[in-house]
Amino acid sequence: MAEITLTFPDGAKKSFNEGVKPIEVAESIAKSLAKKSVSAKLNGAYVGMNDAMNESGDFALITKSDEEGLKILRHSTAHLLAQALRRLPKFEKMHFGVGPAIENGFYYDTDNGAGNQVSVDDFPEIEAMMKKIVKEDLPILSHEISKDEALDMFQDDPYKVELINDLPAGEKITVAVQGEHVELDRGGLVPSTGWIKHFKLVSVAGSYWRGDSDKAVMQRIYGTAFWNAEDLEEDLKRRAEAKERDHRNIGRDLDLFFTSQKVGSGLPVWLPNGATIRRQVERYIVDKELANDYLHVYTPVLSNLNLYKTSGHWDHYREDMFPPMDMGDGEFLELRPMNCPSHISVYQHKPRSYRDLPMRVAELGMMHRYEKSGALTGLSRVREMTLNDGHTFVAQEQLEDEFKSILAMMMEVYEDFNITDYRFRLSYRDPENTQKYFDDDEMWEKSQAQLKRAMDDMGLDYFEAPGEAAFYGPKLDVQTKTALGGEETLSTIQLDFLLPERFNLTYVGEDGQDNHRPVMLHRGIVGTMERFTAYLIEMYKGAFPTWLAPMQVQIIPVNVEAHGDYAKKIQKSLAKAGLRANVDTRSAKMGYLIRDAQTKKIPYTLVLGDQEQDNGTVTVRRYGSQDTESMSAADFKQLVEKDVARYSRPDEKA
Amino acid sequence: MAEITLTFPDGAKKSFNEGVKPIEVAESIAKSLAKKSVSAKLNGAYVGMNDAMNESGDFALITKSDEEGLKILRHSTAHLLAQALRRLPKFEKMHFGVGPAIENGFYYDTDNGAGNQVSVDDFPEIEAMMKKIVKEDLPILSHEISKDEALDMFQDDPYKVELINDLPAGEKITVAVQGEHVELDRGGLVPSTGWIKHFKLVSVAGSYWRGDSDKAVMQRIYGTAFWNAEDLEEDLKRRAEAKERDHRNIGRDLDLFFTSQKVGSGLPVWLPNGATIRRQVERYIVDKELANDYLHVYTPVLSNLNLYKTSGHWDHYREDMFPPMDMGDGEFLELRPMNCPSHISVYQHKPRSYRDLPMRVAELGMMHRYEKSGALTGLSRVREMTLNDGHTFVAQEQLEDEFKSILAMMMEVYEDFNITDYRFRLSYRDPENTQKYFDDDEMWEKSQAQLKRAMDDMGLDYFEAPGEAAFYGPKLDVQTKTALGGEETLSTIQLDFLLPERFNLTYVGEDGQDNHRPVMLHRGIVGTMERFTAYLIEMYKGAFPTWLAPMQVQIIPVNVEAHGDYAKKIQKSLAKAGLRANVDTRSAKMGYLIRDAQTKKIPYTLVLGDQEQDNGTVTVRRYGSQDTESMSAADFKQLVEKDVARYSRPDEKA
Repeated sequence: MAEITLTFPDGAKKSFNEGVKPIEVAESIAKSLAKKSVSAKLNGAYVGMNDAMNESGDFALITKSDEEGLKILRHSTAHLLAQALRRLPKFEKMHFGVGPAIENGFYYDTDNGAGNQVSVDDFPEIEAMMKKIVKEDLPILSHEISKDEALDMFQDDPYKVELINDLPAGEKITVAVQGEHVELDRGGLVPSTGWIKHFKLVSVAGSYWRGDSDKAVMQRIYGTAFWNAEDLEEDLKRRAEAKERDHRNIGRDLDLFFTSQKVGSGLPVWLPNGATIRRQVERYIVDKELANDYLHVYTPVLSNLNLYKTSGHWDHYREDMFPPMDMGDGEFLELRPMNCPSHISVYQHKPRSYRDLPMRVAELGMMHRYEKSGALTGLSRVREMTLNDGHTFVAQEQLEDEFKSILAMMMEVYEDFNITDYRFRLSYRDPENTQKYFDDDEMWEKSQAQLKRAMDDMGLDYFEAPGEAAFYGPKLDVQTKTALGGEETLSTIQLDFLLPERFNLTYVGEDGQDNHRPVMLHRGIVGTMERFTAYLIEMYKGAFPTWLAPMQVQIIPVNVEAHGDYAKKIQKSLAKAGLRANVDTRSAKMGYLIRDAQTKKIPYTLVLGDQEQDNGTVTVRRYGSQDTESMSAADFKQLVEKDVARYSRPDEKA
Repeated sequence: MAEITLTFPDGAKKSFNEGVKPIEVAESIAKSLAKKSVSAKLNGAYVGMNDAMNESGDFALITKSDEEGLKILRHSTAHLLAQALRRLPKFEKMHFGVGPAIENGFYYDTDNGAGNQVSVDDFPEIEAMMKKIVKEDLPILSHEISKDEALDMFQDDPYKVELINDLPAGEKITVAVQGEHVELDRGGLVPSTGWIKHFKLVSVAGSYWRGDSDKAVMQRIYGTAFWNAEDLEEDLKRRAEAKERDHRNIGRDLDLFFTSQKVGSGLPVWLPNGATIRRQVERYIVDKELANDYLHVYTPVLSNLNLYKTSGHWDHYREDMFPPMDMGDGEFLELRPMNCPSHISVYQHKPRSYRDLPMRVAELGMMHRYEKSGALTGLSRVREMTLNDGHTFVAQEQLEDEFKSILAMMMEVYEDFNITDYRFRLSYRDPENTQKYFDDDEMWEKSQAQLKRAMDDMGLDYFEAPGEAAFYGPKLDVQTKTALGGEETLSTIQLDFLLPERFNLTYVGEDGQDNHRPVMLHRGIVGTMERFTAYLIEMYKGAFPTWLAPMQVQIIPVNVEAHGDYAKKIQKSLAKAGLRANVDTRSAKMGYLIRDAQTKKIPYTLVLGDQEQDNGTVTVRRYGSQDTESMSAADFKQLVEKDVARYSRPDEKA
């Protein structure tokens, strides 16, 4: 019998009979190794533990403790899911797309025909069938087949047929077989279904076939799997918490906003509660900027298309822009994709001199993005957004100071919102690929060094990200994480040497010459109202600090007849001080009303009965606390006013 | 010789020889009459004073004291203008359109070719030439000519040729001749150029030939004329004042806003000063509404087109709407023309009960109007506007009370802005033409009576305007006048019985049934930010009350070196109290800086020198006053704070 020679990762070589299976190789080393080996690789390609090997080469076993092992488990669980679905009568005609492992689990794209969709309510039944197949412990084996065989085998599955037809001519086609179930597959699977024990289906969502919005809409079923029950449980807990924090869920529960196709996809409606939060944020940041010598303006949402031709947006960003609208007299109007050209028009309105610089133009600027419906999410991915936008025009030599002063303001804002979980990223141009960027080596070297020096001067930690710069200059990004685990940019300061060129911006210098070129800084402190509010909702889990809370004080009279007037009086006195208070006049049990105030995450709940009324006091309960405290109505008002004034930060001298 | 018989307006008849001229008829009555007779009419058609009459009929002399006489003078002045232009070398090739008398003067549409346009700088030269022709006292005579003769005569004037060719076949064509100058004209002219003594050219503006934006752009030269110098002078004074009040001029002088085709026609940019006023107005009205139990929301500017199909806007208002935008997946998005459907979506978001009513939804709602460029004016006629919009949903029986409470709020707002010059208009359906309106006779009768009763109850004066109602219900409009003399609606409360039907709005009544239909009230208190600000600018002539003024306090140190720090200290203390103060550090003469602060109409100017610095005082000058007053810095701060808090109304206990 012919022999093959396997070279192990540590360099050791060993010979085996041709046709040896990885499981036999593992057993030849140690029984324990065989038990925990999930799959193997020969010359870089997967070999199943029970597949025969017929060539010599580099060989490695993949075990449960390898990261790749977990991927293999999850990939196998996707197959298990498909097999279970096919066995259930209501899904037996289902068509399948692709079913890969992903970062935190796996998914399978499915199509069961309109009106017969999978819902989370089906999950228990599907999981039960998956468990049954696990019990059957079906071996999982790979086979190589011809393209014709493949097309014949998957003739009822149009998506698979498309995948097969798209394979390059001559490409090896393999299938994985487990019992009656066959998958088009490149390998990397556990030895048998019995290996898959700890799994869970987690959600189902719409997705486009091959991510293309011109193609069919499929249902993507998400699930996860682990090697042991504890890991699975912990992951599910984490997921539940993320779901609890998800701004879309809190937004619905607290009546903050809603989206509906009736109103328009990606176009959220801010309900009174959400609108109150947004209004507080807007007034806060506008006042902050005014106090920092920003010139606030209002510029139009529609603009002459030529502005975006000059700026370059039309050339480089067109697919994200709404279609231009013909005004019938040679003018085309465009929903603006960015506010920069509008603020440039403010700069250009008059001749500027060095005395005017730095000139800081700011606005709550509404912009629109022509986004495909598939990508839209709650408040965080929308088609219409209002950016806390600002552009400062500076002389070259003012750049570093201006950068620092923006950063200082940003830090103050973070402190007021109690934002602490973020990282600074200095985004440079890619040194390997400098032709991708605005062509001015000296500018790049100098300005990147300036940003770095400024950060160092201010003693701030940061990481450097070559290749993350904008086309027109380097930038500082503040990176945060969303409840769903994604990374997002919360704030940004971007240096721009290009737009001043394109719009031919100038100022008169101290030398009297009018040909000096300013530099622009684009900056957003709290970003868009939409995304920032989504961020705040998730960060606070809906329990907003008093200054932002839609309702600040819930007043519950013990008996509406007897104490309603007193409650109303307290409410009016609070309202007069600009506080948001509400009297709950519903006739329900006290316990229910108090619980309801807690569910709504209202910072203060007052209970007012005979005693309070007689003494002019209130009984206060803080959100999240079981304790109550009695104080005079005047003291309470002062307490809440202070709370609001210091952005709900604890008293320094507590 | 044959005779003709003329019948005078008083019925008297008199015979004259054929060929008699009106001047001879007038002289036959009285020399003084002949002197003041401008023109005449025979059988309804104009006859010049020196034209021969060859038929009998109704005859009337038109004198200087007749309204029609003034029209004839102005019409004649338009001809004089054209003659003068043709005599000036730079305008000798000019083409002419039409040149009629209008309400307050006359105009002539002219086309001198691109690059050779008339400007106001040319007016003195043109007026001098006009005066020369007046001195020549050229007789003005009418002649009837054939169409061929007319076409030949005006062959170099393409606009006139177009007019001639458009005349119905067989129509009599007359020309008016004065010296070398010939006009295509139907008569109604003074006897000779010597009659035109008191005239003035006032402005020049672009206009489309025949008002059609697809046709050539011409220059419309405006002028006016009177019979005596005093009337002319008074009119010019009135015009100057209107110009001084015109929000476009004040907007430019005080850097409030600008419009430019570069940014987009009809899309004003609010500069920092104007933006400050707007922000004050916005915060004021939002706070006012919140205090009046309005639920403020933010709803998207783009919406699903279907909303406007349901509402009826798409059917009845389409030509004013921007083109819908295809999202590629069956959804069409539309820039909203109105906010009502958005607020309805808020109502519809949850099932409503009688306990929720009245439900008051409000927003600073941005809307867009697809307006032709020719109609656009400053802030008052724009393509993008933000409306202080509100919709209240009420039960039928709450209608009258809700109307009253909106009206009460409106009156409070007017008081705060010191708006006093307005009239209430109750707009009813046209009783002669009821089929033009939403079909429910009982509703109309009842609701019109309700509005009337509410106004009477509140003791408010109003006038009734049958035919001015909206299609869907009666309304109250508050009518004001603009600087340019136009009438505008400042506020409105409209009853709407139709949209609740179209959107099938319901609520659960006290009877537990969910089929009750609410009534909607559309209301705008301060209207759009654009138009309201234009109104305020004109009303205040740019001298805004302190609470609205872009800059409230101008601080002038006598010597920047010596008193700059003290000035800065005062400025900071005012800024901390939320007041807008500025230190003027320019090195210029004190008198100039004080005058400049007055030119900018800043409510308070402080002059700070040694004495003030040593005593901790400020020397205060109120806008428009020559007097100064000295007070402590603390007293001054309190004075301004009080001024702001009471909306700059005089102290009740002065």
